[in-house]
Amino acid sequence: MQTRSKETRSQIKKAAIEEFCRSGYDAASVSDICRKAGVSKGAFYYHFSSKQVLFLAIMEDWLQGIDTQLFANRVPEKKVIQSIQDMGSTLGVIFQAASGQLPMFMEFMVQASRDKEVWNAVIAPYRQYQQSFSGLINEGKKDGSFRKDVDAGEAAWVLISLAVGILLQGVVDPRAADWESVTNKGVQMILDGLHRREA
Amino acid sequence: MQTRSKETRSQIKKAAIEEFCRSGYDAASVSDICRKAGVSKGAFYYHFSSKQVLFLAIMEDWLQGIDTQLFANRVPEKKVIQSIQDMGSTLGVIFQAASGQLPMFMEFMVQASRDKEVWNAVIAPYRQYQQSFSGLINEGKKDGSFRKDVDAGEAAWVLISLAVGILLQGVVDPRAADWESVTNKGVQMILDGLHRREA
Repeated sequence: MQTRSKETRSQIKKAAIEEFCRSGYDAASVSDICRKAGVSKGAFYYHFSSKQVLFLAIMEDWLQGIDTQLFANRVPEKKVIQSIQDMGSTLGVIFQAASGQLPMFMEFMVQASRDKEVWNAVIAPYRQYQQSFSGLINEGKKDGSFRKDVDAGEAAWVLISLAVGILLQGVVDPRAADWESVTNKGVQMILDGLHRREA
Repeated sequence: MQTRSKETRSQIKKAAIEEFCRSGYDAASVSDICRKAGVSKGAFYYHFSSKQVLFLAIMEDWLQGIDTQLFANRVPEKKVIQSIQDMGSTLGVIFQAASGQLPMFMEFMVQASRDKEVWNAVIAPYRQYQQSFSGLINEGKKDGSFRKDVDAGEAAWVLISLAVGILLQGVVDPRAADWESVTNKGVQMILDGLHRREA
């Protein structure tokens, strides 16, 4: 994509996030978004065939950003337990930074609850995370990070649930706690719980 | 309150939940709710001075229900670790039953993100739960349930975050996992993590 075209695309996304936060997804109109972004409707529809497509693109950016930052911590040379601890630290930083993103985060959830296509776009990565963590925990059972009797699938859901819960609370009530520290402690507690007892 | 008056109140709440789920809080009108409940506007305003007051009453019922079921498990004769395990089992059952309540749950969150009064009504009980769990974990440090070096405040947030995360995932994606089992396993992992190492 040309630089100028890329810039337009990113301007439209930025304006849309502001509009969605201010008025909500349903009330935000393509005209308002175009006005705020300083682009024509022609330019808008060149980049995004509909408001929903734009919304999904914003959500994909958001999920992709978390994914990239998170799995940068998985280095094959490290033990699994260490990789997951490092992921916890990364998440803590992401979550502490997520405060202020409450309205957009809520829009993702609400639209997911009303629209099958958005729901699929939210749910697919969750289930994908669960698969990835399941695999990681199974590796950890081999490298001695975790007890052999750990149910990797359920343990993966527990880690993801903790992350989702902290993210939600961090955006809803950023000042209630040091969410970065809560994330690290929580991941550590779960890892301790999964650790080989005989160690 | 008279039986008949109580019934009217509960009919209005039931109709409102349906309307809020179907159209969203903003679009649902008092007229629609009255029509669905089969009550006059006079009766409505006798019970609820505004749509927001009605919404807050529904949310209070919901939170109160969880609270009552949860803390019924705290019996002073039991060790803290046992009480929290039992709470986990109760929550698991509540969460498994919560599937299907997604739209109303989302409405609570969205309204909280837009309206200071609703936000306070959601946040106050969370912070209250954290205080209660903090106290419970401190008791558990005394009765030998947990290590002495556990930070009770942060451990309380970890437990609450896990619960919030499982609840959210359970309502968004009920079929992805056996959420009752995930709740029990998750609580157990955290309790193992908090347990005295020397035990």
